Amino acid sequence: MRIPILKLYNCLLVSIQWELDDQTALQFQEDLLQKIHETSVSGVVIDLTSIDFIDSFIAKVLGDVIDMSNLMGAKVVITGIQPAVAITLIELGIGLNNVLTAIDLEKGLEKLQQELGE
Amino acid sequence: MRIPILKLYNCLLVSIQWELDDQTALQFQEDLLQKIHETSVSGVVIDLTSIDFIDSFIAKVLGDVIDMSNLMGAKVVITGIQPAVAITLIELGIGLNNVLTAIDLEKGLEKLQQELGE
Repeated sequence: MRIPILKLYNCLLVSIQWELDDQTALQFQEDLLQKIHETSVSGVVIDLTSIDFIDSFIAKVLGDVIDMSNLMGAKVVITGIQPAVAITLIELGIGLNNVLTAIDLEKGLEKLQQELGE
Repeated sequence: MRIPILKLYNCLLVSIQWELDDQTALQFQEDLLQKIHETSVSGVVIDLTSIDFIDSFIAKVLGDVIDMSNLMGAKVVITGIQPAVAITLIELGIGLNNVLTAIDLEKGLEKLQQELGE
Protein backbone atom coordinates (compact mmCIF):
# COMPACT_ATOMS: atom_id res chain seq x y z
CA MET A 1 0.00 0.00 0.00
CA ARG A 2 1.27 3.43 -0.89
CA ILE A 3 0.39 6.92 0.20
CA PRO A 4 -0.90 9.02 -2.72
CA ILE A 5 1.13 12.13 -3.48
CA LEU A 6 -0.68 14.92 -5.36
CA LYS A 7 1.05 17.54 -7.43
CA LEU A 8 -0.62 20.94 -7.32
CA TYR A 9 1.13 23.81 -9.10
CA ASN A 10 4.66 23.99 -7.62
CA CYS A 11 3.88 21.84 -4.58
CA LEU A 12 3.32 18.26 -3.63
CA LEU A 13 0.47 17.51 -1.23
CA VAL A 14 0.40 14.47 0.99
CA SER A 15 -2.28 13.64 3.50
CA ILE A 16 -1.49 10.84 5.92
CA GLN A 17 -4.81 9.62 7.21
CA TRP A 18 -4.01 6.43 9.09
CA GLU A 19 -1.24 5.05 11.28
CA LEU A 20 1.70 4.03 9.10
CA ASP A 21 3.45 0.73 9.53
CA ASP A 22 7.22 0.77 9.16
CA GLN A 23 7.24 -0.62 5.63
CA THR A 24 4.68 1.92 4.37
CA ALA A 25 6.63 4.76 6.00
CA LEU A 26 9.84 3.77 4.21
CA GLN A 27 7.98 3.33 0.93
CA PHE A 28 6.49 6.81 1.44
CA GLN A 29 9.95 8.27 2.01
CA GLU A 30 11.20 6.73 -1.24
CA ASP A 31 8.10 7.71 -3.24
CA LEU A 32 8.16 11.31 -2.02
CA LEU A 33 11.83 11.86 -2.85
CA GLN A 34 11.33 10.22 -6.26
CA LYS A 35 8.32 12.46 -6.95
CA ILE A 36 10.23 15.61 -5.91
CA HIS A 37 12.92 14.58 -8.39
CA GLU A 38 10.44 13.86 -11.20
CA THR A 39 8.28 16.96 -10.80
CA SER A 40 10.92 19.53 -9.74
CA VAL A 41 8.51 21.09 -7.24
CA SER A 42 9.78 23.66 -4.77
CA GLY A 43 7.59 22.71 -1.83
CA VAL A 44 5.89 19.85 -0.04
CA VAL A 45 2.95 19.95 2.38
CA ILE A 46 2.49 16.92 4.63
CA ASP A 47 -0.85 16.95 6.41
CA LEU A 48 -1.10 14.94 9.64
CA THR A 49 -4.56 16.16 10.72
CA SER A 50 -5.99 12.65 10.94
CA ILE A 51 -3.03 11.16 12.82
CA ASP A 52 -3.53 11.00 16.58
CA PHE A 53 -0.58 8.77 17.42
CA ILE A 54 3.00 8.52 16.19
CA ASP A 55 5.69 6.06 17.29
CA SER A 56 9.42 6.68 17.48
CA PHE A 57 10.23 4.96 14.18
CA ILE A 58 7.65 6.92 12.20
CA ALA A 59 8.77 10.12 13.90
CA LYS A 60 12.35 9.43 12.81
CA VAL A 61 11.28 8.67 9.22
CA LEU A 62 9.30 11.92 9.18
CA GLY A 63 12.29 13.90 10.48
CA ASP A 64 14.53 12.22 7.88
CA VAL A 65 12.18 12.83 4.97
CA ILE A 66 12.06 16.53 5.86
CA ASP A 67 15.86 16.79 5.93
CA MET A 68 16.16 14.83 2.69
CA SER A 69 13.57 16.99 0.92
CA ASN A 70 15.38 20.13 2.09
CA LEU A 71 18.64 18.72 0.71
CA MET A 72 16.91 18.18 -2.63
CA GLY A 73 15.75 21.79 -2.61
CA ALA A 74 12.12 21.42 -1.60
CA LYS A 75 10.73 23.23 1.44
CA VAL A 76 8.49 21.16 3.69
CA VAL A 77 5.49 22.33 5.71
CA ILE A 78 3.88 19.97 8.22
CA THR A 79 0.25 20.73 8.97
CA GLY A 80 -2.34 19.65 11.50
CA ILE A 81 -0.09 18.21 14.21
CA GLN A 82 -2.42 17.02 16.98
CA PRO A 83 -1.59 17.57 20.68
CA ALA A 84 -0.63 13.92 21.32
CA VAL A 85 1.65 13.90 18.29
CA ALA A 86 3.32 17.17 19.37
CA ILE A 87 3.88 15.71 22.86
CA THR A 88 5.42 12.52 21.45
CA LEU A 89 7.70 14.41 19.06
CA ILE A 90 9.06 16.69 21.78
CA GLU A 91 9.42 13.86 24.32
CA LEU A 92 11.38 11.85 21.75
CA GLY A 93 13.62 14.87 21.24
CA ILE A 94 12.48 15.26 17.64
CA GLY A 95 11.72 18.94 17.51
CA LEU A 96 11.45 18.98 13.72
CA ASN A 97 13.90 21.88 13.67
CA ASN A 98 13.91 24.15 10.67
CA VAL A 99 10.56 22.90 9.54
CA LEU A 100 7.58 25.09 8.87
CA THR A 101 4.32 24.08 10.53
CA ALA A 102 0.75 25.31 10.21
CA ILE A 103 -2.57 24.49 11.79
CA ASP A 104 -4.28 23.17 8.65
CA LEU A 105 -3.70 22.40 4.97
CA GLU A 106 -4.93 25.80 3.71
CA LYS A 107 -2.68 27.77 6.10
CA GLY A 108 0.20 25.43 5.27
CA LEU A 109 -0.11 26.13 1.56
CA GLU A 110 -0.28 29.89 2.21
CA LYS A 111 2.81 29.73 4.42
CA LEU A 112 4.68 27.75 1.77
CA GLN A 113 3.73 30.19 -0.99
CA GLN A 114 4.90 33.13 1.17
CA GLU A 115 8.16 31.35 1.90
CA LEU A 116 8.74 30.46 -1.75
CA GLY A 117 7.75 33.94 -2.88
CA GLU A 118 10.43 35.56 -0.76
CA MET B 1 -7.19 0.38 3.21
CA ARG B 2 -8.80 3.72 2.52
CA ILE B 3 -8.24 6.42 -0.04
CA PRO B 4 -7.21 9.72 1.60
CA ILE B 5 -9.57 12.63 0.93
CA LEU B 6 -8.08 16.12 1.32
CA LYS B 7 -10.11 19.21 2.05
CA LEU B 8 -8.76 22.35 0.38
CA TYR B 9 -10.82 25.53 0.72
CA ASN B 10 -14.31 24.71 -0.61
CA CYS B 11 -13.28 21.49 -2.39
CA LEU B 12 -12.35 17.93 -1.64
CA LEU B 13 -9.38 16.47 -3.51
CA VAL B 14 -8.97 12.77 -4.14
CA SER B 15 -6.16 11.19 -6.08
CA ILE B 16 -6.62 7.54 -6.97
CA GLN B 17 -3.16 6.18 -7.66
CA TRP B 18 -3.61 2.43 -7.88
CA GLU B 19 -6.19 -0.04 -9.17
CA LEU B 20 -9.05 -0.25 -6.69
CA ASP B 21 -10.46 -3.56 -5.55
CA ASP B 22 -14.24 -3.72 -5.16
CA GLN B 23 -14.20 -3.38 -1.37
CA THR B 24 -11.94 -0.31 -1.44
CA ALA B 25 -14.10 1.30 -4.13
CA LEU B 26 -17.24 0.91 -2.01
CA GLN B 27 -15.42 2.17 1.07
CA PHE B 28 -14.26 5.18 -0.96
CA GLN B 29 -17.84 5.88 -2.05
CA GLU B 30 -19.01 5.83 1.57
CA ASP B 31 -16.06 7.91 2.85
CA LEU B 32 -16.44 10.57 0.14
CA LEU B 33 -20.17 11.06 0.74
CA GLN B 34 -19.59 11.18 4.51
CA LYS B 35 -16.82 13.78 4.05
CA ILE B 36 -19.01 15.92 1.75
CA HIS B 37 -21.65 15.86 4.48
CA GLU B 38 -19.17 16.72 7.28
CA THR B 39 -17.32 19.50 5.47
CA SER B 40 -20.17 21.06 3.44
CA VAL B 41 -17.87 21.57 0.45
CA SER B 42 -19.31 22.64 -2.89
CA GLY B 43 -16.98 20.67 -5.16
CA VAL B 44 -14.97 17.49 -5.50
CA VAL B 45 -12.00 16.79 -7.77
CA ILE B 46 -11.21 13.13 -8.45
CA ASP B 47 -7.84 12.67 -10.13
CA LEU B 48 -7.32 9.47 -12.12
CA THR B 49 -3.96 10.40 -13.70
CA SER B 50 -2.20 7.33 -12.37
CA ILE B 51 -4.96 4.88 -13.32
CA ASP B 52 -4.38 3.09 -16.62
CA PHE B 53 -7.07 0.45 -16.31
CA ILE B 54 -10.62 0.45 -15.01
CA ASP B 55 -13.03 -2.49 -14.82
CA SER B 56 -16.80 -2.39 -15.17
CA PHE B 57 -17.51 -2.54 -11.44
CA ILE B 58 -15.19 0.34 -10.59
CA ALA B 59 -16.56 2.34 -13.54
CA LYS B 60 -20.08 1.86 -12.18
CA VAL B 61 -19.05 2.88 -8.64
CA LEU B 62 -17.39 5.98 -10.11
CA GLY B 63 -20.52 6.88 -12.07
CA ASP B 64 -22.64 6.32 -8.96
CA VAL B 65 -20.45 8.40 -6.68
CA ILE B 66 -20.66 11.31 -9.14
CA ASP B 67 -24.46 11.13 -9.23
CA MET B 68 -24.65 10.81 -5.44
CA SER B 69 -22.32 13.77 -4.88
CA ASN B 70 -24.40 15.86 -7.29
CA LEU B 71 -27.53 14.91 -5.35
CA MET B 72 -25.83 16.10 -2.17
CA GLY B 73 -25.03 19.41 -3.84
CA ALA B 74 -21.34 18.98 -4.66
CA LYS B 75 -20.08 19.37 -8.23
CA VAL B 76 -17.59 16.73 -9.36
CA VAL B 77 -14.68 17.17 -11.75
CA ILE B 78 -12.80 14.10 -12.99
CA THR B 79 -9.25 14.80 -14.08
CA GLY B 80 -6.51 12.94 -15.92
CA ILE B 81 -8.55 10.24 -17.65
CA GLN B 82 -6.06 8.17 -19.65
CA PRO B 83 -6.86 6.92 -23.18
CA ALA B 84 -7.45 3.30 -22.12
CA VAL B 85 -9.77 4.42 -19.33
CA ALA B 86 -11.72 6.68 -21.72
CA ILE B 87 -12.08 3.78 -24.15
CA THR B 88 -13.32 1.42 -21.43
CA LEU B 89 -15.82 3.95 -20.08
CA ILE B 90 -17.34 4.63 -23.50
CA GLU B 91 -17.37 0.95 -24.50
CA LEU B 92 -19.17 0.12 -21.25
CA GLY B 93 -21.72 2.81 -22.10
CA ILE B 94 -20.69 4.87 -19.07
CA GLY B 95 -20.30 8.29 -20.63
CA LEU B 96 -20.12 10.04 -17.26
CA ASN B 97 -22.83 12.40 -18.47
CA ASN B 98 -23.13 15.76 -16.80
CA VAL B 99 -19.69 15.47 -15.29
CA LEU B 100 -16.95 18.01 -15.76
CA THR B 101 -13.57 16.69 -16.87
CA ALA B 102 -10.14 18.24 -17.22
CA ILE B 103 -6.73 17.13 -18.34
CA ASP B 104 -4.97 17.53 -14.98
CA LEU B 105 -5.55 18.44 -11.35
CA GLU B 106 -4.70 22.15 -11.77
CA LYS B 107 -7.06 22.61 -14.72
CA GLY B 108 -9.73 20.61 -12.87
CA LEU B 109 -9.57 22.93 -9.88
CA GLU B 110 -9.76 26.00 -12.15
CA LYS B 111 -12.76 24.57 -13.97
CA LEU B 112 -14.49 23.81 -10.69
CA GLN B 113 -13.85 27.32 -9.33
CA GLN B 114 -15.25 28.84 -12.55
CA GLU B 115 -18.30 26.62 -12.34
CA LEU B 116 -18.86 27.41 -8.64
CA GLY B 117 -18.27 31.11 -9.23
CA GLU B 118 -21.05 31.34 -11.77
